[in-house]
Amino acid sequence: MDDCIFCKIVKGEIPSFKIYEDDEVYSFLSIGPANFGHTLVIPKRHSESALSMTPDELGELSKRINIIAKGVKVGSSAQGVNISFNCGKAAGQEVFHTHAHIIPRLENDELTNWPEKTYAEGEAEEFAKKIRESL
Amino acid sequence: MDDCIFCKIVKGEIPSFKIYEDDEVYSFLSIGPANFGHTLVIPKRHSESALSMTPDELGELSKRINIIAKGVKVGSSAQGVNISFNCGKAAGQEVFHTHAHIIPRLENDELTNWPEKTYAEGEAEEFAKKIRESL
Repeated sequence: MDDCIFCKIVKGEIPSFKIYEDDEVYSFLSIGPANFGHTLVIPKRHSESALSMTPDELGELSKRINIIAKGVKVGSSAQGVNISFNCGKAAGQEVFHTHAHIIPRLENDELTNWPEKTYAEGEAEEFAKKIRESL
Repeated sequence: MDDCIFCKIVKGEIPSFKIYEDDEVYSFLSIGPANFGHTLVIPKRHSESALSMTPDELGELSKRINIIAKGVKVGSSAQGVNISFNCGKAAGQEVFHTHAHIIPRLENDELTNWPEKTYAEGEAEEFAKKIRESL
């Protein structure tokens, strides 16, 4: 897409700190890292989010994510990593070209998980039913 | 694994709100949801985290994640979803059987992304080099 910043990075029209590249996938450092070494993995072919991809397309992308995440952990001397996709503006997505975040995590780095909610009686079963019917 | 709570869920020894099942994958509602409809997707064969899997294994799991995430969004009447793997205790992993979180997101649900850090001069290039050398 002509006006997509990640498509421009793939084409080399915008510089990036490249981590990995093959025929289908490009990977580079996030310029707004949650921790240093925060890496993005994107399909070269434009799609809006992981939900816009087919199962096979996300499967192919995820093979590279697995390889790159192992390298991010080692290369960042991290104790763990988060791998995440934000799908949609409501989910915090800022660039609308599918990208996985790989975030190196250090013990006591003070990044915290979201708090847990509690279902009312019968509510979990209801959500499960609605989701199953939406598959 | 005998003492793994998610292996017990797969075997039906611990009840769950099932979302999806096939020969390789099982999916069920999280009992500690960040938002209602928060769904977990796990491989039936035990592995510790997404980093313990092979690229092909994560690829296969991700095909199902794609299908299930689309259903979670619709079935939860959400505007977006986050898809994430926490790999390792430092990354917030609590159960050491690989699992993807699919979290429905609503506009203004007050779940926030982590703040951004800033690289010092030359530091991003150094991280990129170390990660490339670790692939």
